[in-house]
Amino acid sequence: MNYSELVFAIEARESVLCVGLDTDLDKLPRGFSKGSQSMLDFNKAIVDATAPYAVAYKPNLAFYEALGLEGWKVLEQTLLYIKTRYPGHFTIADAKRGDIGNTASMYAKGLLENMGFDSLTVAPYMGEDSVKPFLLPDKWAIVLALTSNGGSADFQMQPLANQAPLYQKVLERVQEWGSPEQLMFVVGATHSDELAHVRSVAPNHFFLIPGVGAQGGSVSGVLKTAAWRNKPGMGVLVNASRSILYASSGTDFAQKAALEAKKMQSDMALFMETSRPLLIP
Amino acid sequence: MNYSELVFAIEARESVLCVGLDTDLDKLPRGFSKGSQSMLDFNKAIVDATAPYAVAYKPNLAFYEALGLEGWKVLEQTLLYIKTRYPGHFTIADAKRGDIGNTASMYAKGLLENMGFDSLTVAPYMGEDSVKPFLLPDKWAIVLALTSNGGSADFQMQPLANQAPLYQKVLERVQEWGSPEQLMFVVGATHSDELAHVRSVAPNHFFLIPGVGAQGGSVSGVLKTAAWRNKPGMGVLVNASRSILYASSGTDFAQKAALEAKKMQSDMALFMETSRPLLIP
Repeated sequence: MNYSELVFAIEARESVLCVGLDTDLDKLPRGFSKGSQSMLDFNKAIVDATAPYAVAYKPNLAFYEALGLEGWKVLEQTLLYIKTRYPGHFTIADAKRGDIGNTASMYAKGLLENMGFDSLTVAPYMGEDSVKPFLLPDKWAIVLALTSNGGSADFQMQPLANQAPLYQKVLERVQEWGSPEQLMFVVGATHSDELAHVRSVAPNHFFLIPGVGAQGGSVSGVLKTAAWRNKPGMGVLVNASRSILYASSGTDFAQKAALEAKKMQSDMALFMETSRPLLIP
Repeated sequence: MNYSELVFAIEARESVLCVGLDTDLDKLPRGFSKGSQSMLDFNKAIVDATAPYAVAYKPNLAFYEALGLEGWKVLEQTLLYIKTRYPGHFTIADAKRGDIGNTASMYAKGLLENMGFDSLTVAPYMGEDSVKPFLLPDKWAIVLALTSNGGSADFQMQPLANQAPLYQKVLERVQEWGSPEQLMFVVGATHSDELAHVRSVAPNHFFLIPGVGAQGGSVSGVLKTAAWRNKPGMGVLVNASRSILYASSGTDFAQKAALEAKKMQSDMALFMETSRPLLIP
C-alpha cells in the first residue's frame, strides 16, 4: 500500500487505529483450546470485529515464532485473511529486524516480497545499510526512534556530544535515507513530554505510536502533539494491542473488542472534525 | 551449553571458530537444485565437513525466513542435526531480536526454550527490559556492541556527551544486567583500531566476532587484540560464513570448506600455543 492509499484510508474511515495482533495462547478467551488453530480463529474474529474502526493491523512476530512452524503458519494465514477480506487495510510485520545489508535484503524478501506485508518495523542500531534494503516500491520501513518501554531511557534518551538525545540523531539521520513515502518512525505515546519535539524533528513522516491503552497514553493527547501540524489527526498510526484483544475474557470478546476499537475511532474522528480549520463560505 | 562447557570445548579443540550458516539458495554449489531440501543437505554437508575445526554454528535466521514455512523447517532440522550429532558444539540463533519485555519473553520461548538454541543475538536499542528476558539458565544473550558493517558509524560510533562512543555505553550498561556466564557481545573484526579498547571496557565477556574472511579481518590480529588478556586465544568466537560456505562452487565444496575451516583453526591453535606463558619447571 502506498502513501496516497494510506492517507485515503485514514480520511475515509476517520481513523488512525492500528490493531496489534500480539496473540498469546495463554490469554485467549474462555472456549478457545490451546492449539494454533485457536490463534487463527481468534485473529480472524478480532479482525472482523475491528475492521470498520481500524486502518492497520500489526502482528507481533514474536508471538507466532514462539509456536515454531505452527505459529509461522498462523502468521501467514492471518495476513492472507486480512489482505483478502480487507485489502484497504495497511499491514505491519512487527519484527524489529536490523542486520547488515545482505541479511536485511533477505528479511525484505521474506516479509515484504514473499509474505506480502506492506511494512515492517526496523531497529536502527546497525545504521544505513541495515535500513535501506527495506525501501522497496510501495513498501515501508518503520524505524524505531523513541520506544514506549522503560528501557528507552538506557540508550535512546542518552545525550550525544551536541546534547541532543540519540533518538533525535536517529530521526535526523534516517530521514536522509528515504522519503516520507517509504519511511515511518516508531514513537511511544508514553513519552508525552517528547512527542511534540519528535514531531518538530520529523515533520512530514508517519509515526507508528504504541503505548496507548494498556500502556497508558491517551488518544487525544497523542493526536494533539504527534499528528501533522497542517492536517489534524493525520500522519500517525496509533496502535492498541492488549486493550482490544483482551477487552473481555468471555465469549463476548469480539463484541468487546469492537466496542473498544469503536471508542478509540470515535475519539479520533472527533479530534479530526473539531480540529479542522474553519472554512469561511 | 554453559560457560565451563564452552571454555572446555574451545580448549579441547584449540579452536574459537564459529561457522555462520548464512545459506543462500542462489549460491549453492553446482548439482544442488533450488529447493529447501537442498538447503538442508548443504547445511549438513558443511557441518560434517567443519565440525572437527569449529566450536560453534550460527544460522542467520533471515536466510531461512526468506523461504517462509519451508525455510523455518530447514532451520529446525539443521539445529536438530547439529544438536544430535555434535552436542559439544555451541549454537547461536543470529536473530538480532530486540523488543519490549513481554515480546522479548516470547522470542526467548521460541528460539531458546522450544527450538533449543544455546544463544541468540540481540539488538540493544530498546534497553534493559528488551535484553533481560533472554538471561535464562545455561542460555546466552549476545548483544550487538560494535558491528562489522559500514552502518556501524551512523550511531554506534557517535560520541555521547562524555565523549565516549555509544557502543562503549552499551558495553558498560549491558554488563550491569548479567554476568559473563550469560552475556556476550558482538564486536566486528573490521574495527581493528577499536578492538583493544572494546576488550578493556568488557574484560571478562566472550565476544562473538564477525568480519573475518569475506569481510577482511585476520584471525591472528583479532586474537591478539580481542581475546582475554590472561588467557591467550580464549574469550572470543570468531565467525566466518561466506569464506567457508562458498569456498568452492563445485562438487568439492565440502572438502574446500573443511580446508578453509582447518586453516583458520590452525591459525587459532598456533596462536594459543605460542602465546602461552612459559612454565618454568
